[in-house]
Amino acid sequence: MNSYDAIIVGGGVIGGSIAFQFAKRGKKVLLLEKDRLAGKASSAAAGMLGAQAELEADDPLFTLAARSRGMFPALAKELKATGGIDIELVNKGMFKVALTNEQEAGLKKKINSQQAAGLEAEWLSSADLRKVEPLLSDELKGAMYIPDDGQVSAEKLALAFTKSAVALGVEIKEFVEVSDLRTENGEISGVTTAMGEFSSRNVIVAGGAWSAFLLEKSGINLDTHPVKGECFSVLTNRPLIEKTIFSDGCYLVPKVGGRIIVGATVKPNTFNQQVSIDGIATLIKKATRLLPAMKETEWEKTWVGIRPQTGDGLPYFGEHPACKGLFIATGHFRNGILLSPITGVLMADIMEGKQNQEWTAFRLDRSVQTIFS
Amino acid sequence: MNSYDAIIVGGGVIGGSIAFQFAKRGKKVLLLEKDRLAGKASSAAAGMLGAQAELEADDPLFTLAARSRGMFPALAKELKATGGIDIELVNKGMFKVALTNEQEAGLKKKINSQQAAGLEAEWLSSADLRKVEPLLSDELKGAMYIPDDGQVSAEKLALAFTKSAVALGVEIKEFVEVSDLRTENGEISGVTTAMGEFSSRNVIVAGGAWSAFLLEKSGINLDTHPVKGECFSVLTNRPLIEKTIFSDGCYLVPKVGGRIIVGATVKPNTFNQQVSIDGIATLIKKATRLLPAMKETEWEKTWVGIRPQTGDGLPYFGEHPACKGLFIATGHFRNGILLSPITGVLMADIMEGKQNQEWTAFRLDRSVQTIFS
Amino acid sequence: MNSYDAIIVGGGVIGGSIAFQFAKRGKKVLLLEKDRLAGKASSAAAGMLGAQAELEADDPLFTLAARSRGMFPALAKELKATGGIDIELVNKGMFKVALTNEQEAGLKKKINSQQAAGLEAEWLSSADLRKVEPLLSDELKGAMYIPDDGQVSAEKLALAFTKSAVALGVEIKEFVEVSDLRTENGEISGVTTAMGEFSSRNVIVAGGAWSAFLLEKSGINLDTHPVKGECFSVLTNRPLIEKTIFSDGCYLVPKVGGRIIVGATVKPNTFNQQVSIDGIATLIKKATRLLPAMKETEWEKTWVGIRPQTGDGLPYFGEHPACKGLFIATGHFRNGILLSPITGVLMADIMEGKQNQEWTAFRLDRSVQTIFS
Amino acid sequence: MNSYDAIIVGGGVIGGSIAFQFAKRGKKVLLLEKDRLAGKASSAAAGMLGAQAELEADDPLFTLAARSRGMFPALAKELKATGGIDIELVNKGMFKVALTNEQEAGLKKKINSQQAAGLEAEWLSSADLRKVEPLLSDELKGAMYIPDDGQVSAEKLALAFTKSAVALGVEIKEFVEVSDLRTENGEISGVTTAMGEFSSRNVIVAGGAWSAFLLEKSGINLDTHPVKGECFSVLTNRPLIEKTIFSDGCYLVPKVGGRIIVGATVKPNTFNQQVSIDGIATLIKKATRLLPAMKETEWEKTWVGIRPQTGDGLPYFGEHPACKGLFIATGHFRNGILLSPITGVLMADIMEGKQNQEWTAFRLDRSVQTIFS
Repeated sequence: MNSYDAIIVGGGVIGGSIAFQFAKRGKKVLLLEKDRLAGKASSAAAGMLGAQAELEADDPLFTLAARSRGMFPALAKELKATGGIDIELVNKGMFKVALTNEQEAGLKKKINSQQAAGLEAEWLSSADLRKVEPLLSDELKGAMYIPDDGQVSAEKLALAFTKSAVALGVEIKEFVEVSDLRTENGEISGVTTAMGEFSSRNVIVAGGAWSAFLLEKSGINLDTHPVKGECFSVLTNRPLIEKTIFSDGCYLVPKVGGRIIVGATVKPNTFNQQVSIDGIATLIKKATRLLPAMKETEWEKTWVGIRPQTGDGLPYFGEHPACKGLFIATGHFRNGILLSPITGVLMADIMEGKQNQEWTAFRLDRSVQTIFS
Repeated sequence: MNSYDAIIVGGGVIGGSIAFQFAKRGKKVLLLEKDRLAGKASSAAAGMLGAQAELEADDPLFTLAARSRGMFPALAKELKATGGIDIELVNKGMFKVALTNEQEAGLKKKINSQQAAGLEAEWLSSADLRKVEPLLSDELKGAMYIPDDGQVSAEKLALAFTKSAVALGVEIKEFVEVSDLRTENGEISGVTTAMGEFSSRNVIVAGGAWSAFLLEKSGINLDTHPVKGECFSVLTNRPLIEKTIFSDGCYLVPKVGGRIIVGATVKPNTFNQQVSIDGIATLIKKATRLLPAMKETEWEKTWVGIRPQTGDGLPYFGEHPACKGLFIATGHFRNGILLSPITGVLMADIMEGKQNQEWTAFRLDRSVQTIFS
Repeated sequence: MNSYDAIIVGGGVIGGSIAFQFAKRGKKVLLLEKDRLAGKASSAAAGMLGAQAELEADDPLFTLAARSRGMFPALAKELKATGGIDIELVNKGMFKVALTNEQEAGLKKKINSQQAAGLEAEWLSSADLRKVEPLLSDELKGAMYIPDDGQVSAEKLALAFTKSAVALGVEIKEFVEVSDLRTENGEISGVTTAMGEFSSRNVIVAGGAWSAFLLEKSGINLDTHPVKGECFSVLTNRPLIEKTIFSDGCYLVPKVGGRIIVGATVKPNTFNQQVSIDGIATLIKKATRLLPAMKETEWEKTWVGIRPQTGDGLPYFGEHPACKGLFIATGHFRNGILLSPITGVLMADIMEGKQNQEWTAFRLDRSVQTIFS
Repeated sequence: MNSYDAIIVGGGVIGGSIAFQFAKRGKKVLLLEKDRLAGKASSAAAGMLGAQAELEADDPLFTLAARSRGMFPALAKELKATGGIDIELVNKGMFKVALTNEQEAGLKKKINSQQAAGLEAEWLSSADLRKVEPLLSDELKGAMYIPDDGQVSAEKLALAFTKSAVALGVEIKEFVEVSDLRTENGEISGVTTAMGEFSSRNVIVAGGAWSAFLLEKSGINLDTHPVKGECFSVLTNRPLIEKTIFSDGCYLVPKVGGRIIVGATVKPNTFNQQVSIDGIATLIKKATRLLPAMKETEWEKTWVGIRPQTGDGLPYFGEHPACKGLFIATGHFRNGILLSPITGVLMADIMEGKQNQEWTAFRLDRSVQTIFS
């Protein structure tokens, strides 16, 4: 039986990034995906790189997120050169808008704390905002402008990681579901699938919200849960917005060719991939309040992503506390696209035994310590 | 060159019904469709047979509509036997509901006039209505119950007509657009297409809203215009309604397998087949007001139909005033499915030279008389 | 926590039939489906009811298959009345054709043995065959005519079972994957899912090829494996064949509206749902050899079904040898549609403790006896 | 009524390129498309830039084609900067392969004549070819290597032209069909549509194969006809070929992300957009003969393009011989993508009254001179 330096379970943007980084370090990698590559949350994402928009400067995840965001320009070139795919990186910045005085106050406070941390962010009055984005509602109080929060095509990014990984020698098998983890003397030795067993001393579970099913079998019960998010997209011949518009409970991301992605609802604790009428109605209402011209756009399609959330809101990166060689990278919630570059590097470092104080907050045993103590 | 007893231009539900009736009378028929069969309004319809719901008892169209509705049970059997297709006729009746006191008064008046005309219709109070349809909003004032207004699958009906026509010997060509009408001495002699010419002494234009383009070439300018209608459908495992629910500006038609069709917006003077966000938002708002449980249903899809409307709201049936052998059947607006059975029979009668006083209201020269007088 | 009389795992045609029969016997049933209802092999099937075409008269499965085939006419009416869905039952018979002298001899022998068993079957010469189906290739040696092997719409049948089950009170949850079976003292007590636990003293695993994943957790290792089958469909305005045409490695099933389904490849030991170019090329070659007029038809679409096969080719019906209350119904391979009516009745009988000598051949312990002895 | 400097009829790659060039020259342009932008042949194309592969060096079209090919690198940057869209230009060259000795001789002769004309082209033996493309069949005799014939995404190119045109101020209306041309004293004055009339002294017909319908109304009968081409695409995780492989009757174009486009059949004189089984079977057979590994790839989809061909194989560029201000650009056959950049510039030059000896071969009156003489 063939043996691999590492087996990655999960063919989304996280599994793809890890495979790409492992391959760059010369590892012989097998990536297993139970369905199609990038078939779930990775393709459902709007692709915002909202490090400053989504996170507070003192969030343990912020440093990681900002570093990951900074990796995109070089990564875009590298992936284009290696796998031929343009990830459609756009660095035009983001507006986080306020509809109420409370939101305005909150955003101004956020700006102050981010500026204090040396980050670029500034307040635009309603009038100044509409000079740049004239079709936004005059109901808006103004916006926090974040020049460094860009966006990519989530689907292209996931594809770019896996295609580049293949170009570097990674072996990929779709429609192969890992039914069990194999261990010997408390160490991982491989995986069991309907297509047979595959051997490796390193197995990385990167299955997004579905990771929990597999980890159960390892005696670990990570505090994670699925969060359904519904989105839709519209088409328009004339561009309505130039930058991403972000508000409480609704964002609008302008894509190439006149597409705008509108997202996303937040419905915890379900793997149900059906789009509800209520979800669509809520999103349309919020989106047209921000951008009244949305009403005249053409409906394109709607979809669902199941995002992996954790109890404390932080992802899990690290080795299994009781099973040597079993690594986990999950819990990225709405930041999977943003965090994918750094996750690949970080997991490669962890697997190579490197130590780094920064990762402590994301260790698996932060929530399961009682079980293994 | 082959010659036909009749050439029908248009492969929707009207052209199909005419072809079926002509074939039953032993005619050699050619049906030409510029795109796919039933690709436009015929497949977009919700399939309501709303003779009493849509028309007043004194409307010139009412008698025709009621007779056409009455043809469906026998037709369903005939089409199933001839072409093998079940048109999914459901005869469970319809509720035309009132949301305001004005609507309630209007419906009660309508009930009276229909009862006076010998038709079945009755008023149900809000409480009685919700005994039958318990999930309807308690905001409703009540409903006009119309036991005889059933429904079919519009798509299946169109398919059944054309497949049955083929079984009876009709020749069908898809993707063949008639670019011109050919005449000799003021009489029709055939049609010109990119695939060559086809000869017949009888040409019937049944192209729905697109009929106008062709009729222009005949020197006639019928007072017709396209009216865009947007719809969407949802899926649900448990049945939410049993009967069709009809209100001002919104209807809900329960289909087999848990599908509900919600329609339809009314946007005149456009052939644009794009679904607007505004259209969807409006329909969802109206539908969930009638049936709050709609919110939890699953979004399926959305589409557009371009319906042929006329200046006075009545369809055109008859021979061209200045071109012998050229017949027209268009202008069915939202009643194309309902009127399709009678239209087939009527056009066959007209082509065979039968006289019938009832048709006078639908003659072509009612609006173009000045041109040809 | 709610408790059910029975929990059925799997929302395909088998799970649906069992749910329907249980509900008819007054049971409180929960049906769990990990994805969408009828999303896998049930919808992929061509819907042939080939009891005589697929099985030998002395096959232990034959009696069951013939009885199940005989249930369809009454079932079609019952499902239409209960759930409103027409399963499109067509009873025009089937031609099992011979391309070689060896195949001719084999079919004639099969006819003899079936006639001896009191079944209807006869040989048609090439000339006689082409009187009925004039477009079939003149290369054919003739055909075995089986008047009683009809067909249905597989997708409609699966839908009809589940919708009728719902109408009778069955509760259905889609996108709920059973991750584990719960037992108490060697008896089943319920199932674990990401949506929580559900309790019942009876759990029926009817997950087709995916059943194996779940059964592993019960300590049983049934000798089953997935077999991929690729199909495609074409559209045609004029009917090319009236009856199902069945040959070695290829069948053509004429559906309503001019669709013909062509199937199916046989690729064991994979859950891969991708259609290969080789699969399509092979099917086209075989189909056009049987029916040259296929060449001019319109391509519609292609798809894959993953069928559950067993080591000895017989399905498994029965109770788990070591876990009271855990029942299994799987391994139907290419006969799932045909066997679904009898499977529902049989599983209801087994669960009610009825004894029947006929089922012995399908007991679970026929292959696992050594483990549990 | 609004008046435009130019009205372009047709929203494909040719109409889009003309609109883009006109807008760059400061014109006020209206582009009308009867359906969706790039909905027909433009999106159906494989995107090869086969100037040397498709044309002989002494073909009157060759100079134009080579110049157009040379415009792509700068155009790609310009379109990306203006409209944000990457046209996925790949400049890896093309192999025109020989399967027979006759083809080998023909290609070697072609290489000689192209080298004599100063173009790059060279012969690779079968062994040398398979060093670069190891998965190609060993049945091949060798290949003509054309380093300068690249490829783009046809769909992206069409989108890039129209989006860039919009960014420069061009007004676009979809679903607006021009039903007639308006003239005054033998000069064009505008167009008639179902959405009303639009005025301009310059109307450019760029409707591909559909141009003929409109030109009939102008009293001109260009010698053009539609040619249907069927294609399909496959997906593969590992790259099978690096460069475009071109042979008699079949080409394979490797796209980003592991897609390979296989084209195309040649079926003259039909607007039928249905894919035939015969077409698919033929393409699969040819493609797998060139590249046996195709067999294991995954089927993605199939489609049809209707290409505009002319009697002498040359496109028409120029002003209508009898109607001042009416311009035509059609007849690009299989070279629409390749010729689109130069066509935009050329039509802008023609409309501005520039003279150029090179265009003579493409004048409209070359074939209609007798009519107007």
